[in-house]
Amino acid sequence: MAGGRGERFWPQSRLATPKHLLPIVGDKTMLAQTVDRVVGVVPRANVFVITTQAQLKGCQAACPDLPAGNIVAEPMGRDTAAATGLALLLVKQRSPNAAFAMLPADHVIHDVAEYQKLLSVAFEAAEAADVLVTLGIKPAEAATGFGYIQQAGPWKEISGRAVMAVKRFVEKPDLETAKAYLASGEYFWNAGMFVWRVPVVENAFKAHAADLYAGLAKLEAAAKATGDWTAALAQLYPTLPKISVDYALMEKSTNVVVVPATFDWDDVGAWPAIAKHFTPDASGNVLRGVAMVEDGKDNIVVSDDGHLTAVVGLSDLIVVHTPEATLVVHKDRAQDIKALLKRLADDPAKKKFL
Amino acid sequence: MAGGRGERFWPQSRLATPKHLLPIVGDKTMLAQTVDRVVGVVPRANVFVITTQAQLKGCQAACPDLPAGNIVAEPMGRDTAAATGLALLLVKQRSPNAAFAMLPADHVIHDVAEYQKLLSVAFEAAEAADVLVTLGIKPAEAATGFGYIQQAGPWKEISGRAVMAVKRFVEKPDLETAKAYLASGEYFWNAGMFVWRVPVVENAFKAHAADLYAGLAKLEAAAKATGDWTAALAQLYPTLPKISVDYALMEKSTNVVVVPATFDWDDVGAWPAIAKHFTPDASGNVLRGVAMVEDGKDNIVVSDDGHLTAVVGLSDLIVVHTPEATLVVHKDRAQDIKALLKRLADDPAKKKFL
Repeated sequence: MAGGRGERFWPQSRLATPKHLLPIVGDKTMLAQTVDRVVGVVPRANVFVITTQAQLKGCQAACPDLPAGNIVAEPMGRDTAAATGLALLLVKQRSPNAAFAMLPADHVIHDVAEYQKLLSVAFEAAEAADVLVTLGIKPAEAATGFGYIQQAGPWKEISGRAVMAVKRFVEKPDLETAKAYLASGEYFWNAGMFVWRVPVVENAFKAHAADLYAGLAKLEAAAKATGDWTAALAQLYPTLPKISVDYALMEKSTNVVVVPATFDWDDVGAWPAIAKHFTPDASGNVLRGVAMVEDGKDNIVVSDDGHLTAVVGLSDLIVVHTPEATLVVHKDRAQDIKALLKRLADDPAKKKFL
Repeated sequence: MAGGRGERFWPQSRLATPKHLLPIVGDKTMLAQTVDRVVGVVPRANVFVITTQAQLKGCQAACPDLPAGNIVAEPMGRDTAAATGLALLLVKQRSPNAAFAMLPADHVIHDVAEYQKLLSVAFEAAEAADVLVTLGIKPAEAATGFGYIQQAGPWKEISGRAVMAVKRFVEKPDLETAKAYLASGEYFWNAGMFVWRVPVVENAFKAHAADLYAGLAKLEAAAKATGDWTAALAQLYPTLPKISVDYALMEKSTNVVVVPATFDWDDVGAWPAIAKHFTPDASGNVLRGVAMVEDGKDNIVVSDDGHLTAVVGLSDLIVVHTPEATLVVHKDRAQDIKALLKRLADDPAKKKFL
């Protein structure tokens, strides 16, 4: 899944170059890193990228080694349930009983070997029973920005790893609830990573998201009749309900299991989160490109294209320079970038900076 | 005098484009504004610009209407006493008894009519007696960044304006002393604006700065012998003592009078000082170019060349974007730009940003 807007990384992320098309952490785009990671488990020919029209060229450029037909553009974003449905149809026409993984393309995972091991375990689980398999992240803190997965004790051991039954999926909690989840030891973060077989997820759509299931059936029929996915998508994708896969399927299904992730994981949700992936200077400043701090600490300064960005006498700032735009924001206010982008969207003269 | 480095306006001011060659306030460069102001009192043909080699082209571009020969470059800066000596020689070879004004080229004065009136009064005073005339600024606060002029009661009334005798010139005071000066009502700020006749200032050099006087005599002889000012300056200017005109002449002379300035005046010493020359938005933000503030107040944001600079959730910052460099500094820390520039000067890879 490579269709998000990643606006929290503005001004590096733009409409046509969202987070997964940037080397936010590392030298390659997040998408290319994701594909590289998966290819140890799934042959490259079987890796699909689902993106949007605006990002299609960027995804093609980021993944030159993927078959061109494997990069599929939604006419517009319809949230993750519709994207899952599209993936389902793409896999089904190749192999109607195959297991496939749905994975976000903008996460950072350094321990690739362990990741590949657990992704294999998830595939084995999906092939062993009619279950929806998810990978759950052990919570590092009482985060309110993720949904949670409550486990209900051991389900099976697969290739030496414990796989747990799932009691329920829950939406992003408030802080008190998140603290309780953390204290209970029963919860995982929902990182949006799923593995399932075509008929199992198809049944889940049929049981819990009848509208979507009907829409997907029409889309499948149209694509089959004409052989033209692009036309079928343009006509029918806009009619699909806009809903998350968590809400449409996971919260309602009872045949869910979770593979506890034992690899490092970070969704790098916004600028402040990049700090831990770089070595700071002696004052805790993370400096990328031609960046300087004079008498300040714990700043993140990103300056592209040989342009010098200098921070003097200030701490805890995020300063990001790109050729078109520069952002200066306090670390604690990174979420307010959204309000700025709203103003840009509303101003004809400034829309071009989105 | 248009030779200062104006490093306090980095990154807009650079080695070749210091403050007086920038439109820091207004649409024209500070130098062009200064020349325009003076031309109401002195014919354009008699306006000289004393600058440095590095800034010569910039001064010529800023003053296309001045005779090319009137823009004279020092081989290097030797402080204001040497610059005054050079001005003295340039005026003297045209008119050995003429009165002339020495004026900084980087001040802001909006009330041009009153300025011209008082400059005329200063010329009249200089022609009426063998005195060194200065224009004194009424202190607006107990500033520690200026030298002060203590008056000693009325000297003469000229064209309806009181001109005062001067008791003494004093260096920049500490805060307690500055407060006492302000409270006494006897002191003016020394803005470095002088008017005097050639023989009077020549006598002052002879009496109080013998080394400089001797050096200037050699320079005059060499220029007269060869007719080549450039060569004479290149050879002899570096040998002149590096000293301010205040210290060399004004603090030691007893024939000084002061014309109290009744026009507005601002030396716009650093970035925080520009705020009062612009209309802020409702939150007190001064925005120049394509600049935005989201939920912050009293910021100064300057963004050139169509580049967007956005500040989110921060107040009291100065953010200046130029195509080569961006500065982010707290308003109270603007003086620390010097430390940053020192680091740039010491770093071969970053020297180009000076």
